[in-house]
This record gives sequence, structure tokens and C-alpha cells, in this order.
Amino acid sequence: MLPFARVTIVGLGLIGSSIAHAVRAMMPTVRVTGYDADPAVRARVVELGFVDDVADSAGAAVIDADLVMLCVPVGAMGAAAAAIAADLPAEAVVSDVGGAKVSVIKAMRESLPHATIVAGHPVAGTEHSGPDAGFATLFRGRWCILTPDADSPEIAVERMRVFWEGLGANVEVMDPAHHDLVLAVTSHVPHLIAYSIVGTASDLEEVTQSEVIKFSAGGFRDFTRIAASDPTMWRDVFLNNRQAVLEVLQRLTEDVTALQRAIRWGDGDTLFDLFSRTRAIRRSIIEQGQDDAKPDFGRSHD
Amino acid sequence: MLPFARVTIVGLGLIGSSIAHAVRAMMPTVRVTGYDADPAVRARVVELGFVDDVADSAGAAVIDADLVMLCVPVGAMGAAAAAIAADLPAEAVVSDVGGAKVSVIKAMRESLPHATIVAGHPVAGTEHSGPDAGFATLFRGRWCILTPDADSPEIAVERMRVFWEGLGANVEVMDPAHHDLVLAVTSHVPHLIAYSIVGTASDLEEVTQSEVIKFSAGGFRDFTRIAASDPTMWRDVFLNNRQAVLEVLQRLTEDVTALQRAIRWGDGDTLFDLFSRTRAIRRSIIEQGQDDAKPDFGRSHD
Repeated sequence: MLPFARVTIVGLGLIGSSIAHAVRAMMPTVRVTGYDADPAVRARVVELGFVDDVADSAGAAVIDADLVMLCVPVGAMGAAAAAIAADLPAEAVVSDVGGAKVSVIKAMRESLPHATIVAGHPVAGTEHSGPDAGFATLFRGRWCILTPDADSPEIAVERMRVFWEGLGANVEVMDPAHHDLVLAVTSHVPHLIAYSIVGTASDLEEVTQSEVIKFSAGGFRDFTRIAASDPTMWRDVFLNNRQAVLEVLQRLTEDVTALQRAIRWGDGDTLFDLFSRTRAIRRSIIEQGQDDAKPDFGRSHD
Repeated sequence: MLPFARVTIVGLGLIGSSIAHAVRAMMPTVRVTGYDADPAVRARVVELGFVDDVADSAGAAVIDADLVMLCVPVGAMGAAAAAIAADLPAEAVVSDVGGAKVSVIKAMRESLPHATIVAGHPVAGTEHSGPDAGFATLFRGRWCILTPDADSPEIAVERMRVFWEGLGANVEVMDPAHHDLVLAVTSHVPHLIAYSIVGTASDLEEVTQSEVIKFSAGGFRDFTRIAASDPTMWRDVFLNNRQAVLEVLQRLTEDVTALQRAIRWGDGDTLFDLFSRTRAIRRSIIEQGQDDAKPDFGRSHD
């Protein structure tokens, strides 16, 4: 049994378009309607043809939906929810894909006080953005975290679980505030550091940008991938998960300071101990299918 | 014309074994002799069969070499050079692959005061270590930096250039101290930050290790690859490139602090400006063939 028959996707970037591709591939009888606030994106999606219908307004897009997925940047969720409020069918489930959950749930509940809301976050993506970047297998083997609150009906949570599992994801249910802390560690602070290190490298007076690019295979290039992610999306994540990000960042800064001190005083044992410990984490990530086992992420070497 | 006829590789880990594979593939008439201080590694290399001969001592390995490549951790270079001193032919060129150059050149010159030395550093690698990890195409399209000093004869530098180009690398000649600063930016500090963030994540009390692993596809897993690199090699790099690493780390810390402040005060413009700027660097790295153009480093999504 399919959990939904008419899915509307509001926001047709990487995640929205990937959901559309995945629904088409895995649930071919489901009707998929798309909407994006940007007319150029709507026109492009018509060309690409990965939805059954592109609506001209958010209201028209949701009018007969039984699931509405909000796939816009975290800071735009409240406005996107408000734009569908007048036309949302009473029985529809509203969900989202935002990377910060406490603030998004608050924004959605304010705009849609009577709706059935089950917030969610598929932990998947690439550094590319926009409707051309989506593909059907993006969520396969990745985790989708559902973060229902006290007003999310159990049956709606179950339907969302079946939906995401149908797209190939594993599903975990988590408290919204705990989600925000976990993702600060596994996603937000890594992105912030990657952006920062790429910025620092390109600002150094003593090393040219050309040198940074040429010799990036020494490690730097690994950071540039996630530092090429969508700027609007990431600005919004940091502004909307402020507390957890600052908390984890503070911890990281303390740990970096300790390593800095170990380098200054020539304390090789402290360095060696840490560098040995971190290998085990990588091993577990590969064993659990969350990264490519091939060296160098499977980059081609030919 | 081949620049060398009898190449000896001292240290048969990832880099040493990759050089051996590459010489065999690209210069099949060259005789390759290998040596490693670890008898287990020597035995394994005999099994793998990627050198013509595995010597039982460093002295025996170099006795008729015209090129000796020292491929041991930076902190072991002095001892490796001392171990070949008595048997090194007068006309042989000695080179190395260490990631920090000023300290390695000093150590080699102390152990081999009369030798022809041209230090070098191929900016290439994977997160895997040991003689099983090597492969012939590791250096293809990557840069090898040669860092001759005042006592390195021009003709020997040229032979090393032809050698590395023969293995598929691009070659750049650089002042040793400048090399150490450039690599602090493009390799050493990125590794230190990657090690640190993986350590911080696994130490947090509020987030379990299982959660960190499950949700690592949010960005964290990108850091775990280089944080799985060889601990001895990296301890030595930090202890031997102390000044440049601390200098770049200080700059990075200032930049992270500025971002921290932007998040705390809700300054979205500062975040957005940085996040937009960093995309251009990634684009240049891909255009110049220093990373995979496919999304997600070309990781498989099936």
C-alpha cells in the first residue's frame, strides 16, 4: 500500500527534485505536482519533465494533495507554509526537509495552526544545487530523521516513515532539539569549518590562489566540495540552529587549541593518540554503508 | 632517455610502493630495489612482487643505485639517510617524498654531507597505508614539488623532474620554506582540522557515536577520510612543520571566530558572502583537473 497518492513538492532544488525523481522511480502510480517560487526554475522543471504537473502558484499546487513536502531553505519555510495555508486540504500531511528542526516546526505551526505536520530531514545531498542536480537514488541507504512534535499524529508519522522507506531511506524518529544538536555535529559545524578553511586559504597573502588550487590534492580539496554547497540554504541553517552550532563549535575550538599546544610543545604522543583513534570512526562509517569503501572516495585515478 | 637505470626505494608504504608500481608501469627497463625497516613489510613486498629485489639491509639496497628515494615518515628521514651513508655510491642522487621540507633537508644533509640531494614531495595520496595500498596511477595529473637547496646540482634537479614527469606527475620547483607554508595551507592544517573534528564528535557526551556514524552523510564523513591517514606520518609532519602550521592555524582560528560572531549576532550577509566566494575555488580545482567533477566526488549512489 502506498502511503500517499498525490504528492506536492514546494521548492524544486536538489532535494525537491530528487524526491520527485525518486517518487517517479519507486512509486510510479503516485501523481507528483511541483511548484517553485522562481519562474525560471518552474520553466526548467517543465523542460526536464520529472513531475506530472508544474503549478503556477503554491495554492494551486496543493489543492488536491495528500502530502505536501516543503523543500525550501530553512529561513523560507514559514513563508512557504503561509503561501499554501488557504488552499491546503484538511486531511493533507505537511512535511519538510529542513536541516534545522526546532525553528522550522515553530514557523510551520505558526503559518498552519490546524494542519497535520510531521517535520523531517533526509540526511543526504551533494554539493550541487537546483532542479538539474536531482536524481532518484539520492536517498538510497541514507537516513531520514522524522521529528514529530506533540501535535503530530502517530498515524501520520507512520505514513511518512513508509514514504521515506519507499524512496530507499532508513528512517529514525528523534526529538527536534536532539536532531538539531546531532546535526550540528555531523553536518553544520563540518560545513562551517569547510567554508572557513577555504576562505582562509584564499585570503592568505603569502600563498597564491593558484598554489592553493594546484596543491589541493594534499587534503584541501576534500573541504572544497561541501564548501561549494548552496549559500542561501547554509546561511539559513546557521541562523536557525544558532545555539547548537555555537555549542559544538566551542567544543571544537577547545580541542583544536589543545592540538595547537601539543604541536607547539612537541608533544607527539597526544597527536599520535588522536590520529590513531579517528581511524576507527571511518571504519564504522564504511561498515554501516554511509561512505564509499574505495580509497579516495572512489575518485578516478586514470 | 630514462633519467635513472637503478632505483632504490627505502620505505615501502603507500608512497614508496606506488612509486615502485609506477616505475614498473612507465619505465619497465628500470631495475627497482626495495627496502623497509619492518621485516613484515619486506616479506609482504616479496609476496606482492612489485619490485625486482627486496634487500635485507638499507646498505645492501643502495649499493648499485643511481637514484635512492627515501619514502619514510618525516621524523625517520635522518635515520634512513644515516643507514645508507656507508654504502651509497658517490654518483647516486638521493631524494625523498616527505611532506615537510626544511627539516628533512637538514636531516638528510647531516647524515649525508657529501651526497647529491634533491628533496621532493609528490602531493598525492589516499587514506590507506602500507605496501598493499600502492598503485601505479597515484601520481598521474598530481603535482610533485621539488625543493632543491643551494647544494643541489641543477642537472640532478632536471633528472628528478624527468623522473617524476615520467611517472605522470606535473613538476614545480619551489623554495623549501615556501613549500612548508603552502603545504601547511593545502594539506597540514586541513588534516589537523579533520582529525580534530572527528575527535570532538566522538567525545561529545550528548551525541552518541552511533548517531555520529549514522548521520555522517550530512558532511562529517568527508572529514573522516583524511582523518584515517597514517598516524605516524602525520604526527611527524606536525612536529616538523611546527611554525608554518601554527601560523596558518592562527589565521584559521581568527576566521572561525569571525563566523562564530556572525552566527551569534544573526549577521546573515557575512555568512552568505563567504559561502558564495568559496564556490569559485572548487570550480578552479575541478577545471585544473585536481578533483573529480562528478557530484559527491563520484561516490556511487546505487
